[in-house]
Amino acid sequence: MGATRVIETLVLSLLLFLSGSSATQRQKTRAGPRLPCKQMVFYFHDILYNGENAKNATSAIVGAPAWGNRTILAGQNHFGNVVVFDDPITLDNNLHSIPVGRAQGFYLYDRKDYFTAWLGFSFFFNSTQYRGTIIFAGADTLNKTRDISVIGGTGDFFMARGIATLTTDAVEGDVYFRLQVYIKLFECW
Amino acid sequence: MGATRVIETLVLSLLLFLSGSSATQRQKTRAGPRLPCKQMVFYFHDILYNGENAKNATSAIVGAPAWGNRTILAGQNHFGNVVVFDDPITLDNNLHSIPVGRAQGFYLYDRKDYFTAWLGFSFFFNSTQYRGTIIFAGADTLNKTRDISVIGGTGDFFMARGIATLTTDAVEGDVYFRLQVYIKLFECW
Amino acid sequence: MGATRVIETLVLSLLLFLSGSSATQRQKTRAGPRLPCKQMVFYFHDILYNGENAKNATSAIVGAPAWGNRTILAGQNHFGNVVVFDDPITLDNNLHSIPVGRAQGFYLYDRKDYFTAWLGFSFFFNSTQYRGTIIFAGADTLNKTRDISVIGGTGDFFMARGIATLTTDAVEGDVYFRLQVYIKLFECW
Repeated sequence: MGATRVIETLVLSLLLFLSGSSATQRQKTRAGPRLPCKQMVFYFHDILYNGENAKNATSAIVGAPAWGNRTILAGQNHFGNVVVFDDPITLDNNLHSIPVGRAQGFYLYDRKDYFTAWLGFSFFFNSTQYRGTIIFAGADTLNKTRDISVIGGTGDFFMARGIATLTTDAVEGDVYFRLQVYIKLFECW
Repeated sequence: MGATRVIETLVLSLLLFLSGSSATQRQKTRAGPRLPCKQMVFYFHDILYNGENAKNATSAIVGAPAWGNRTILAGQNHFGNVVVFDDPITLDNNLHSIPVGRAQGFYLYDRKDYFTAWLGFSFFFNSTQYRGTIIFAGADTLNKTRDISVIGGTGDFFMARGIATLTTDAVEGDVYFRLQVYIKLFECW
Repeated sequence: MGATRVIETLVLSLLLFLSGSSATQRQKTRAGPRLPCKQMVFYFHDILYNGENAKNATSAIVGAPAWGNRTILAGQNHFGNVVVFDDPITLDNNLHSIPVGRAQGFYLYDRKDYFTAWLGFSFFFNSTQYRGTIIFAGADTLNKTRDISVIGGTGDFFMARGIATLTTDAVEGDVYFRLQVYIKLFECW
């Protein structure tokens, strides 16, 4: 009897101790397997303006180094080119599928001796299936797959954090590329 | 003996109660109501350089597509224009109120068929009331209100995460706009 | 009596099991001291293209206001200049040390009356010591030290969050600067 009360007190104080969450310490180190709380796969399609495709282009060069211009990507692996894009997002790898959202933001080429880029963009959804945004930032490379960060989200993706694995699904010269984006969220609210 | 069983039950239900939350697993899925740990409302004021207002301008076009320039926002909803800004933050919607900080960073227009923009910027505070920075990224739209992400913070806003709801409070042509920023932090350290 | 001890053991192991952890509510407010889960110090070196140093330059002006150009940083504290960089990261402050990674991304000058900048970049590692990226965003200033945010990471720095304290270690005119970056992660997975 006395023991029960002692234990109840212990458990209660434990509950209070934990209430409002967390940390109790201002540090988090997690052990155990990495399990996504949400996974999604999308494709997006980028058609770069080259002076002749104004109608179809979904992106445009808006910054260039002194030795570049804004209709042709610069030499040295396009180092210094800044591109703004508004690309359709599809569920499969067909450019002509009905878009489920828009990939919007910028990328900039940031290496002279081979291709790398820095990306800052959002997936913007406004359909019956998804409503809200997923915010991405990170480094793109020539690797077969590469990870960028999901740094935030709104709406259905409120406070999201995670990883997006990029795979280049198609490239046509300097004008068209298609990326597969495999999103794995590890913080879901 | 009975006491032990009671306690085991208590501890087990506690474990179940906590399972899926948190750490011990490398995944976080949160249930329950969304309660901000900190809320703040600010306004910021953007005066875009147009070739004639060098003295008052708080922002300038620094990138444009091939068909644009840097004193007039481009056609097609300014697609491709990149703007750098250093805008005063005020507590009310009066441009002439004493600034409590600076909104600094960039936005870029990223849609041809109607207005959307991508924002990356900080609120920079250095007063007796607040000291530190709040870092924002996300998608701006024509919606009456729209949410962007708080992706980090320093000083008084160390490790902040949350949402900022933007409301356009005033627009005067292409030269002036004022945004209300309602910040709701959901991670406070 | 025996029961109490059993329970104490259960509760204690539960406490250990939960320590460092997490969220049963959709809000997190942390008390207690701020203890980094990982700390690292690096240097990176930026050599800005000035029209004459194409071979050595690691960065280039790619955006400028209407009154600027892309080989000389603009007046008014370079307000509006956007710079893309691919800078070597070293373990000490010697430009000629073997790089352990690359700092890649952009900075933009965002204040007319004195120097401030906005940074978005990654540390990219691909060595035996580190593999992965750390993503940074935030406000740079003239202060002796200033904090920016670690907003994400991949690979060895999966899901990282924290702070990076920047210290200007050297400046040579408008062409060279070296930053010390003291990274303190407060979320480690």
